[in-house]
This record gives sequence, structure tokens and C-alpha cells, in this order.
Amino acid sequence: MAVTTASGATWQEVAADRQKHRDATIAAVEPALPEISEIPTNTTPIAKKVLTADEIKITESTVEVLAVQLEKGEISAVEVTKAFLRRAGLAQKVTNCITELLPERALQRAKELDEFLKTNGKPVGPLHGIPISVKEHVMMKGLDINAGFISWVGRIGEDDAHILKILWAAGCVFYARTTQPQSLMHLETSNSLYGTTVNPFNRNLTCGGSSGGEGALIGFRGSCLGIGTDIGGSIRSPAANNGLYGMKPTTLRLPTAGWSATMAGSEQIPATIGPLSTSLAGCKLFIKTLIDAKPWLKEPTLLPFEWKEADPFPAGGKKLKIGVLWDDGVVKPHPPVTRAMKELVEKLKKSGNVEIVDWKPYKHDEAWEIIANLYFSDGASQESAAINASSEPWMTLTKHIITENPHVQTHTVESLWAATARRDSYRAEYAAHWNSTSAAGSSANGYTLTDSDMVDIILCPCGPSAAPRLETAKWWGYTSQWNLLDYPALIFPVDQVSVEKDAEGEKEKYEPRNEKDAYNWKLWEEFGAEGWVDAPISLQLVGRRYEDEKVMRAAEIVEKEAGTPFVKYV
Amino acid sequence: MAVTTASGATWQEVAADRQKHRDATIAAVEPALPEISEIPTNTTPIAKKVLTADEIKITESTVEVLAVQLEKGEISAVEVTKAFLRRAGLAQKVTNCITELLPERALQRAKELDEFLKTNGKPVGPLHGIPISVKEHVMMKGLDINAGFISWVGRIGEDDAHILKILWAAGCVFYARTTQPQSLMHLETSNSLYGTTVNPFNRNLTCGGSSGGEGALIGFRGSCLGIGTDIGGSIRSPAANNGLYGMKPTTLRLPTAGWSATMAGSEQIPATIGPLSTSLAGCKLFIKTLIDAKPWLKEPTLLPFEWKEADPFPAGGKKLKIGVLWDDGVVKPHPPVTRAMKELVEKLKKSGNVEIVDWKPYKHDEAWEIIANLYFSDGASQESAAINASSEPWMTLTKHIITENPHVQTHTVESLWAATARRDSYRAEYAAHWNSTSAAGSSANGYTLTDSDMVDIILCPCGPSAAPRLETAKWWGYTSQWNLLDYPALIFPVDQVSVEKDAEGEKEKYEPRNEKDAYNWKLWEEFGAEGWVDAPISLQLVGRRYEDEKVMRAAEIVEKEAGTPFVKYV
Repeated sequence: MAVTTASGATWQEVAADRQKHRDATIAAVEPALPEISEIPTNTTPIAKKVLTADEIKITESTVEVLAVQLEKGEISAVEVTKAFLRRAGLAQKVTNCITELLPERALQRAKELDEFLKTNGKPVGPLHGIPISVKEHVMMKGLDINAGFISWVGRIGEDDAHILKILWAAGCVFYARTTQPQSLMHLETSNSLYGTTVNPFNRNLTCGGSSGGEGALIGFRGSCLGIGTDIGGSIRSPAANNGLYGMKPTTLRLPTAGWSATMAGSEQIPATIGPLSTSLAGCKLFIKTLIDAKPWLKEPTLLPFEWKEADPFPAGGKKLKIGVLWDDGVVKPHPPVTRAMKELVEKLKKSGNVEIVDWKPYKHDEAWEIIANLYFSDGASQESAAINASSEPWMTLTKHIITENPHVQTHTVESLWAATARRDSYRAEYAAHWNSTSAAGSSANGYTLTDSDMVDIILCPCGPSAAPRLETAKWWGYTSQWNLLDYPALIFPVDQVSVEKDAEGEKEKYEPRNEKDAYNWKLWEEFGAEGWVDAPISLQLVGRRYEDEKVMRAAEIVEKEAGTPFVKYV
Repeated sequence: MAVTTASGATWQEVAADRQKHRDATIAAVEPALPEISEIPTNTTPIAKKVLTADEIKITESTVEVLAVQLEKGEISAVEVTKAFLRRAGLAQKVTNCITELLPERALQRAKELDEFLKTNGKPVGPLHGIPISVKEHVMMKGLDINAGFISWVGRIGEDDAHILKILWAAGCVFYARTTQPQSLMHLETSNSLYGTTVNPFNRNLTCGGSSGGEGALIGFRGSCLGIGTDIGGSIRSPAANNGLYGMKPTTLRLPTAGWSATMAGSEQIPATIGPLSTSLAGCKLFIKTLIDAKPWLKEPTLLPFEWKEADPFPAGGKKLKIGVLWDDGVVKPHPPVTRAMKELVEKLKKSGNVEIVDWKPYKHDEAWEIIANLYFSDGASQESAAINASSEPWMTLTKHIITENPHVQTHTVESLWAATARRDSYRAEYAAHWNSTSAAGSSANGYTLTDSDMVDIILCPCGPSAAPRLETAKWWGYTSQWNLLDYPALIFPVDQVSVEKDAEGEKEKYEPRNEKDAYNWKLWEEFGAEGWVDAPISLQLVGRRYEDEKVMRAAEIVEKEAGTPFVKYV
């Protein structure tokens, strides 16, 4: 049994106990991992010093490559699981991204999968033998689900979350659980249980959050596919900060039943669940597998949208039309982001297979006011209660989003309705903004829209900088905008900050528009390119509601036409 | 300008002014309608005494028949509009179902449509020349939208509702607006503005509600297609009581932007909009036209489910499997309902093309508690304010659902979340109940469901009796159940109460299970078949969420196999 505040322990004792448990699970990995005495700022080269060539090869393979090898029996699920367990253990030692490893149950499962393949001559399902890492608050039967609150330690999963059951039935192996921030509402990852998770490419930077354990782990290649959750950027910020693919699907497509979080029953801004992966194909396989299982039959809040196989941009058909949002009009991105974006756009323009237009921001400041108000419509009483129950301290970024957030309000039912109606008005205005990108505008009858010449996809930054320096990730607008609108959004890796490439950007003079903008720009002026060295630069593709498949297809086209990413991260 | 309480008038003066306006619009119909001095209990034979043979022929044609004739130019939109204006005016005189007719603008529109067809040789759209009647609270530009509240008289529509714009672009003619009850929350139709709307087949019975004006008007054939709204039975009760087809689609498929109602921004139990029609094809054409216009592009709360053309029950393919819910376990239906249902089921069993099983009710009493609590989560403060602002009296059935409803609660945000979570739990339990109808239960991997042998559709009553006697429509469970679950539900006509056919049912002895059941059964014992003579008996088909097309297809199969309706109503 875990030490808990309910049984009289201090918060520090609870934290120490959880860390001890975590360390024991890592110590159980075989062969044992060495202690790492000196950790460089960019941790990624350590892997090749510690792991075998075979382990490196396996862990640096993508989901789609592993899936084929596993299906053919060219590698065993046990080999794959062992390799990822070791690299995940190493990732913990250098980034602090793990809450526990599951070597015993994972290897048992892998053995069974290998036996199944041998006996039946076919895989269990499309994810046969694929190791999947899981953000801690997604419930696993028999394991702690504290969601990052000291006071919740000792809550034990009664069952596996719905999503885990489907992935399990598809053949995957669960082997690692990952860190998340206090309140699950930071774009970074630190809590009182485990401290801070850092970015594997530059330990002065954040891995992002709230699915930051996943970001750091997969960025380090201690996983090739992981489960995150997102209500304001929590899948996308870690994916972006670590040079990964990460998809926030439209809400109510993928199963969320059985996660542990505050605010159950709140509907204004539903949280989503989705993949982070080292490959786009990994994200796609994850999402398709879940949708093909018709999860709406068991979880009827989900919508029965079948997987759309048809290519919206077939050869000789409609050309992908991208609207480029360079700046959200609130907080201007740092020069390295804009620099990489320009390079990408130039390549796309030259390709001839993509049409590029500019996308004007539409009141992103107002959008932030609306969503920041709707996040905590009970005045954050459940978060406050969960934190205060153990006397654990309030983290800087918890204060930022709750007590120092001027938009938080304890709503009445009537004021909540009004705020919801305001959300819907904004959504309708944004839809009109999108519709106005159609040159024809309307059809013969003067009313019905034709969407054939509208912008298909928005291309935009993932945040106002590459991975933020620790405790500075305060502007959520580049990701939360698409939660408010409930648009599907996908992160893809493009480049990396370098002192050489980004020296030019240090010369830029800029007069900030507001306080948030000034805060962000000042960081750039203070630290310059050197302050972000090796940080991945990622970008975001956004589609209209329920056009998840179209967003993924657009990413395939962009990758092919522009040859992203421009660098090899690991 | 209308007389309003805001300008100092009493509620009686406001009502008198609105009635005067209504009467003037009816007096403007040409040729003028005679006064009806003696109105029989069953009003339907009056039409043939007053209207011309041509008018009878047109108004007793279905949407699909008229659409073809209009498209070919065999009849003109002006002829059709004139005929329906006259029959609608007559319907008002015998059932009190109209708030205003729109002869001038309707005939102007019809003329333009006729000219368009002549000039272009093709119709404006799939609803070219089809007259559509509209429940008053669906906003029309420049007209009063009082939603049945005296205090709201004088609110003028700033624009046409989204749904009206699409239907207009498809070629329809708006010519009549119809009554609704105080608060829009009765399964009957009476308010302080216009008094009570009655059932055209038996004036001692209700036309149903809240879209009761539509029900009475279409039942009388003063319309062939109308727009209703439904949050607990408000499309289906009027459709059922008047022997019509009426469809409550799954929420968020059809456009609702631009209706006038309380509780804007509330999301727990969204209201839906849908058709009532004299034909199933009329309902289908209405829904398909709206969906084909991609309304989600302009109203982004709507879900982009395209119209599903594929037949789920193709020849030689899966056979339609119907689960029959005879009784919801709370309030037992009156014998005529069960009698007609048995007759239908026997015919379906004999057909060999439909599989029939029994469907067990699952906690419909608890379902009612949940939805009756969620209807007014502000404690009905907006309804109370709207009624009390004019000092108009509270109607019996307004009191029934608000002040005498033990489940109404003034929620805090937290208690509302808890109530919402309870709703979702119940929905998940009901989904499991439905999944358990699969004999196989699950697939090879032990988890993924196969739905190929599950029940497709539930067949059930529309209420615990045929059209209720006035002021007695208190049990919503047979319709509100499917709002809570957000399942699409379609009403179709089956039979009619007759003293001869239903004499046997008067002998039935029954010991009620609870107070609601006792209330309903006592009405039967008191009035017997004679009390419901000529009342249509309708039944309901229900599908899973977003299986709207499947429900309509099932209705086509049922009609064909069983030959419903068994009688000709008009």
C-alpha cells in the first residue's frame, strides 16, 4: 500500500514514498541501468553510450516499422518490450519523466503475444507487440491514479480505462506510466510528487505539459507511442517541445471514460485524448484503431464518426489550400519559430502541389478570455480542494492559471449559460471567418456555401517560442484557441534552434503590443538563440471540426512536399 | 406595433391584440372562409363541406406528390399556397392552432417561384413550392417571436432562423405560424395568448405539445409539412396525437440557431428541431435537404454527419431486428395502444422480413428523475421570470412540470456537473443494455463488439394513451426517455381508437404500480374507449444516437411489411 495523507503522512512523506516506488520499478529492469553521474544539457547522446546497438535500433524505429517486424515475427514482442523498458528507465534518469515502469506485467504480456503469434500464425491485432506509454491519470486497474495531486495518492484504478481496453485488444504492451503537472493545467510538467520533468534536448527548457512525461519520454525515444490528454495544449505542447507528432482530435471521437481528473460532468470545454509519437503513421494507426473499434457503442457520449478513408486531396483533384497564421495578434512568436515557418512555407510554395494564402487572426485575445473563464467554472474549487487537502505548495504555473488568472469566476448556472452562449457566438464568428476564405462565397441560390475553394487547413505556430524556459510557459493561446473552437490540431516537427541559423533573429527590434507579448519577447532578448539551443521547432496544422483525417492527410502532403523535418533530432 | 406589457397593457389586452392580429390575417385569405357555427367533436369532415374539390385534392396530397407536380409545372405554387392558406384558416376556426397566417408574403413568394420555374425550366430546389408551417418560436424576420409568453410579445425577429434560410433556399413557401404552450414545456398546447389548441379528431383531447399547433394543423391537413421542436416529446406527442409522422432527430444535426426560448447556453439536454408531416417521405426530404446544405459550416455547434444514403437492410443482407418495448415499467399504456401494437407486431412476425424480440425497460423511472432535474437546472428562474413579468396565470401543466415537479433544483455549477455525470452513467448503462442484445456479445479478442446481430430499433408507444384528454398529459416518459439518451425517434400512424375495436380493453383489470400509473389507468376506467373515439393511435421507432437514417429506413420497412396505417384518418 502507498503511503497517503489519508493515513496521516505529510505530503513530503507521500512524495518520497512514490519516488521510492518509482525507483524500485526502474531498478527491476534487466539488465540493470547504470547511474548517470553527469547529465549534459542535451541528454539525447547518452542513449548510445548506455544501450546496445540492438536496443538503439529497436527504440529508434517507428511504430509502423515495428508493427511489420512484429507481425512477421522478425523481432519478438519480448525483445521490443525489453529495449523500451531500458530506454525508458534511462529517460527517467536524465529527464524525470516516469511515475512507474511496469516490467513484470509488460514482459508477461509480451511473452503471451509472442506465443499467440507462434500458435496462430497471425497477430492479435493492428498494434501487436507495440509498446505504449501512458500518462498517469489514465486509469490502469490496480495502480495508483493520483493525477498529480498528493492528496489523491492511494486512489487505485478499479478497471482499465476504456481506451486502454481497446488498445490492449489490438495487441499493445503497456510498460510505462508518465508524469503530469499539479492540476494537469500547466504547459510544463512539475508536481509535488516528483518535481520537474525537463526537456531531453535541453534541460534548461520544459518538456511541455500537461502530458510532459510523455513528451520527454518519447523525445528521448524511451517510447514510440504514448497517450496524452489535451484541454488547452497538453498533448501538443509536449509533442512540439520534443520534436514529435501529436494529435489533439476533435472532442468526443476517442474514448475518455476512466481517466482521473477534476470536474467530471463539465461540458463547456471537454478534454480530449490522443497520441504522441515519433511518427505521423504512429498517430494515425493509434486513432484509426480506436475508431475502428466503434467505441461509441460502449461509451455513448462519443460520436459515431467512422474512420474516413477517402483522400480529400486525390491526385488530379482538389489541391490542398493552406492558410498561414504567422502570429495570433496577441503574442508574437520568437524569431526561430518564424524563421522555420518561412522556410517551410517557401518550400511548399515551390512545390506547386499546395496553395498558400495568409490567414488573419480573429480576436484570439477574446478567445482566451472565453476559454480561460470556462476552464474553471466552479471557481477552481475542486483543484483548490485537491491541492490544499495535503498542504502541498501551489506551483508557480498552477497559480498562473488559477489564482492569478483574472478570468476565473465562480459561476451560477445562469452565468455559466451566458458564458457558454458567448463561446458559441465566438465559434459561429470564427466559422464565418473561415467561410469568408471561399472566393465564390455562395452558390446560385444565394445561401448555400460551396466549400470547394475554401482554405482547408491552417498552418500556425504551436506556441510563442520553441520549448519554453522553465516556469515561463504562460501563453496558451496558440494551442487553447483550437480547444475553444474544438478544431482538430496536429503537431509536426520541422527544425531545431541553432546559434548559427538563429543569430539573425537576435537582431530583430520589436515593440510589444501588450504585457503578455512583452513578457515573451523579453525572454528572447535575454537569452537569445543560445538559450534555446537544440530545442526542436515544431508547427501545427489545424482543420475544421471532425476533419481529423483531413488534418492527418494534410500533414502527409506537407511532409512530402517540404521534406520535413529538416534535421534529424536523435 | 403590437400591444405589449412593456408599453403598459394588461396581459389580457396583449392577448386580445394578438388574437385580433391573428384573425385579421385569416380574414385576409381569399376567397374568404365562412364562419363555422357548429363544430363537431371530430372536426375533420368539415373541410370537405367548405373547401373546393381542387383544394381538397391539393391539401390531401403528400409532400412527395406535390413536389413532383410542382417541379413539372402540373400545378403552380400559387394554387398550392392558396389551398393551404384556406385549409389552415379553417383549421384555426375548429382547433385554434394558428398564431398568424402570412397570405401576402406567401403568395408573393409563390408567384416568384412560379416565374422562376417558367423562366429557368427547373425548380429552385428540392422543396420548390412546398408550403411549410412553422412553430411560432422559430424566428422569422420582422415578426413577433413571443414563444408563448405574454411578456415576450413585441420581441421581433431580427433575421430568419438558420433552418428557415436553408428551407427557403430549397424553394419552400412559409405561410402559417402555429401555437405552442406556455413555457414550451407541456405535452399539450395552451397559453394565455390564445387559449387551448384542441385535437381535430376529437376536440375533447389534446393536439399534444409543445408543437401542438403544428400537430392540429397538419392533422387537419392545413399543412403537409411543418417545423416542430422537441426536448421531451414536443414533436412526437403532436405527431402521435394527430396520426402523423414526426421525427426527433439526434441532437446537433439540424440547425437550431435563431429560435426564441429560455435557457440559451444550456447544454445538458439540448432541444432538437424536426419535421411533422403527413408522410414519411415528407420528413425524410425535410431532413435530407437540411443536412445536404452542410449547416455545420455556418452553425459550428452542429456535427458534420453527412446524409447516409446506404441502406442498412439491403435485400439479402441484414434483416431488421426490432425490440418491442410494450410498457416502460412506470406507466402502463391504455389498452387501445397495446391492442394496436399487438396487431402490428403480429403482422411483422408473419412477414418474415423482420425479426422481433422483446425489449426490457431499463430503469425508466430513474431516467425521468435525471431528465426532470436537468430540464430546469437554474430552478426554472427564466421561465418564472418570463411568466411573472406579465402577471399572466400559471397554466396547470406549467405548474405540473415546474412548481409541482419534485426533481427541479437550483443547481450550483458543482451539483450540475454531478447531475450531468449521472446522466452520462445512465446513458452508458443503457448502451450496455442495448449491447447485451447481441447474442455473440463480443468478438474473438474478447473485447470488441460486433453489432451485426444486435437489436437495430426499438418499437414502443408514444405515450401511455392515445391523445390525452385535456390537462392530463402528465407522463412524459415514453418520449423524454429518448431525449435523455439522445436517441433519434420517429412517430408513425398505426390505427385509431374505436368503440368497437376497443370494447374488449374496457374489461381489463389492472393494479397500478405507482401514483403516476394509477392516475393514467383511472382515466381509462373513467372514460373508456368512448372517451378517445377517433383518436389516432401512433407508435414510435427508436434508434441509437445518430442512426437517424436507419430509423427512417426501418419505418419504411415496417410500413411496407405491416401495411400501416390500418385506417384512413382523413
